[in-house]
Parts: sequence; structure tokens; C-alpha cells
Amino acid sequence: MSFVSHMDEALAEARAAAARGEVPVGAVLVAPGGEVIARAGNRTRELRDPSAHAEMLVIRAACAAAGSERLPGHVLYVTLEPCAMCAAMIAAARIARVVYAAPDPKSGGVDHGARVFTHPQAHHAPEVLGGIGEEEAAALLRDFFAARRD
Amino acid sequence: MSFVSHMDEALAEARAAAARGEVPVGAVLVAPGGEVIARAGNRTRELRDPSAHAEMLVIRAACAAAGSERLPGHVLYVTLEPCAMCAAMIAAARIARVVYAAPDPKSGGVDHGARVFTHPQAHHAPEVLGGIGEEEAAALLRDFFAARRD
Repeated sequence: MSFVSHMDEALAEARAAAARGEVPVGAVLVAPGGEVIARAGNRTRELRDPSAHAEMLVIRAACAAAGSERLPGHVLYVTLEPCAMCAAMIAAARIARVVYAAPDPKSGGVDHGARVFTHPQAHHAPEVLGGIGEEEAAALLRDFFAARRD
Repeated sequence: MSFVSHMDEALAEARAAAARGEVPVGAVLVAPGGEVIARAGNRTRELRDPSAHAEMLVIRAACAAAGSERLPGHVLYVTLEPCAMCAAMIAAARIARVVYAAPDPKSGGVDHGARVFTHPQAHHAPEVLGGIGEEEAAALLRDFFAARRD
């Protein structure tokens, strides 16, 4: 599986989130062996939980399944740059690499704002790769918010 | 109820967490009317969930109970300076005020490291008051980690 096909799976989760009336962000988590072990879209509205971002949901699910608070060697694919909350969770779980699609200058916490991985205090900084699938991810978000403004 | 008595309740949660073998941090969430609507200690080990910090647990519980992703006017008491993950969750939930006991130069994300509330990008910055009950909260953490090193 390539970067692009894993991001395609994350984009499918983002589209499913939009269909549920959630902000369209999706994520998949890939184990060191290459298999997708968790996939999720945003569920903050459905669960009435401001922490129910796609990234949080896949990491929590994978940790519960693994019986571990840490997921070394795992790769997270997510359609939007993680916020500071998710970035700190990614560090806590020792995720090896984060591949994201669209940057988020408004709420991102990786390459914008709090830049959680860049502080000397960060206990773990994953490899970060942005821009894979950016156009489709950004279009999903743009369409979603445009429709809600109508 | 005063600052000190709410922090005493959070400290009781921290002691209960230590008794369960969890890092001793506790939190209580106080509604605008003054009642404590959620209390929790760390449960990251028990739940195998790196997001199961005391702050996250009380905010998630209160949001679920309220059927809302936002908790305006609520006050969070927590025995340790929140990390970047919890700080971003606090902002997302629109918590009005955060009262914490011990500062956390190593992992704190409010007055150290990522300083999540200070970025122009922060959508909401609660009032923050640190140092209430600091000595007892810090002693709990010190004793816990000293015992684990023996």
C-alpha cells in the first residue's frame, strides 16, 4: 500500500463523516506490518465529545486493541493537519510518522500555532509529511462549510 | 465552595489515582452554578488510553451529560498544569477558567512548552490560575515517582 492509497482510505472516512453532518476529517492508522488497524472520521457532534477527532478515535481504538498506551512504528494518515490536542496525543502514543493532507492554518497544531512537536519539551516528535491528497481533503472541507453557510 | 476546597477534591482524586497505580493527577469540573459535575483521576494505564488524563475524563463526562460539545462558564480544577492535549481540549470545550496546582515544566502545555492558549490561533483562552494546592500536588507526584524508582 502506498501513501496515496492509505490517504484514499482516510478521505473515504472524511466523506462518511460529512454524510453524518460532521466536519469532514478522516484518519486511518497503519501498523508496522502495513495493515490498517483502525479507521475513523470525526464524531464530535454525534458523541457530543470535543475530543472525538478522527485521529483521537483511531489512536484510542488501536491502543485499546493492542492493550498498550504506545504504538511505536505506527503511521497515522489524516486528511487535515492535526490540532494541538491530537498532536500531543500522537506524541504520547509514540506514533512514528504522521502523513496529513490539507494544512490547517486556523486550527493546526503541527505546522501552525502551538507547533506541538517543535518544543524542546516534546517527549517524542514523529516524522511529518504534509500535502498528500491535499486538494481533495481541502475541497471536502470547503464544500462542507459552504453548504452549512447556505 | 472556595478554590481551596475544590482543589482538595481534585487532590483526593489524585490520591485515588496513585492508589490504582496511575500517575497521581486529579480533576474536578464545576458548573456555573457552583456544583461539581464531574471528578476523575488519571486512568491511562487502566484504560490503555494515552488520552485518559483526569482533565479529559471530566470534560468528556460533562459534555456527554450536558449533550453539548461546549461547557461555557465551567471551571476546571486540576492538580497538575494541563499538557498540550488537555489544554487544546479545554479550549475546544470553551471552559471559562482553569485552576491548577503544580506547574509542569516537563510536560505542561499552558505555562510551558506549547503554551496552547497564547497563540493568536487559539479560538478560546480560559482564565488560568496556577499554584493553588501546589505543595500537596507536587508531593503526591514526587512520592509516586520515587516509590516507582525504588
